[in-house]
Amino acid sequence: MHLARVIGTVVATQKTENLPESRLLVIQPLTPDGRTEGRPLVAVDLVSAAPEERVFFVRGREAANAMPNPDNPVDAAIVGIVDAVERY
Amino acid sequence: MHLARVIGTVVATQKTENLPESRLLVIQPLTPDGRTEGRPLVAVDLVSAAPEERVFFVRGREAANAMPNPDNPVDAAIVGIVDAVERY
Amino acid sequence: MHLARVIGTVVATQKTENLPESRLLVIQPLTPDGRTEGRPLVAVDLVSAAPEERVFFVRGREAANAMPNPDNPVDAAIVGIVDAVERY
Amino acid sequence: MHLARVIGTVVATQKTENLPESRLLVIQPLTPDGRTEGRPLVAVDLVSAAPEERVFFVRGREAANAMPNPDNPVDAAIVGIVDAVERY
Amino acid sequence: MHLARVIGTVVATQKTENLPESRLLVIQPLTPDGRTEGRPLVAVDLVSAAPEERVFFVRGREAANAMPNPDNPVDAAIVGIVDAVERY
Repeated sequence: MHLARVIGTVVATQKTENLPESRLLVIQPLTPDGRTEGRPLVAVDLVSAAPEERVFFVRGREAANAMPNPDNPVDAAIVGIVDAVERY
Repeated sequence: MHLARVIGTVVATQKTENLPESRLLVIQPLTPDGRTEGRPLVAVDLVSAAPEERVFFVRGREAANAMPNPDNPVDAAIVGIVDAVERY
Repeated sequence: MHLARVIGTVVATQKTENLPESRLLVIQPLTPDGRTEGRPLVAVDLVSAAPEERVFFVRGREAANAMPNPDNPVDAAIVGIVDAVERY
Repeated sequence: MHLARVIGTVVATQKTENLPESRLLVIQPLTPDGRTEGRPLVAVDLVSAAPEERVFFVRGREAANAMPNPDNPVDAAIVGIVDAVERY
Repeated sequence: MHLARVIGTVVATQKTENLPESRLLVIQPLTPDGRTEGRPLVAVDLVSAAPEERVFFVRGREAANAMPNPDNPVDAAIVGIVDAVERY
């Protein structure tokens, strides 16, 4: 899974029918020291993440597995909210 | 899913038989501030996207899942048109 | 799918038995303005591509789906020859 | 598989129900000369890795295959502890 | 598939039970002009590759397909030895 921060939402009225009804959030990956960096992704929100919250998400086929119906064309899903990252 | 802009089309008369008849668009990924950056992709258009439009697309196996017949050799499919990205 | 140019072939006498008999071409990804850039890949040629030709290819599981027998350990397959890329 | 070092843990109380109970470790990929570099990942720990230990992990669908129940939304799993890397 | 050079082996006594018994080699990707570059991978050796040899390997689900038993948590497998790369 990957660490990211919730940076926005996507408004989309035209989309394929088999996309789930869940909210689509824009997330951006996090570096080891917690900064956002790199290309944003659009992920299905399965944990009711709040704005700016740190989350972790799954990619690819496993994102579809996280959904109630795994036959969705979804390749990124937020599956947990990060309370803390404890560094060794 | 990933944010991209539609930047062109691909004309291809010789292709494998099991490719779908759908239009093949050239799309380029978007940075957090909305600029196109990085390598373009060839994606099947499932939402009748217009030139220059912002879209989001799925990659890999999930792109095939977005198609009526999932046994296609397709690894990128446009599944939504972006009306707006609301940043927090 | 991804745009690439055919830049060579691979000669390999020792390989796993379940690899298909098809030609193995070396291809290199293309930038938005058509230059080759980045790491080359070894792809199965399903469209009889010529040297230096521009092609598009699929990656991962979908490459195997493009083959007559999808149980091959193939993760890149050329599925179309690019006649033209029309930029908007 | 990929080489990485264990650099921390993730504390997450809100997560999807089908995530496994296993520990979630933060790992960072290793360069050829053994330095950590690049974005960290959150991986399920299947080998009781210790802090700072070098491990190797699988990504994507194969991570789910490493779990007792492969229907988990897991895309990274630590499957071995590295005793030594012997360079030629 | 991807071009790489065999640069070492991994010694690992603690690993998950469903990993195959095959040798685990450390390989590093090759640039178009044949230099090693980028992060090393740990790949299952299916062709008895020699030290320093050039090989090509498959990633992801297809690596598992290359194994006698495809239910392994393997995401990289060496499937061929490169005799020569003929550049156009």
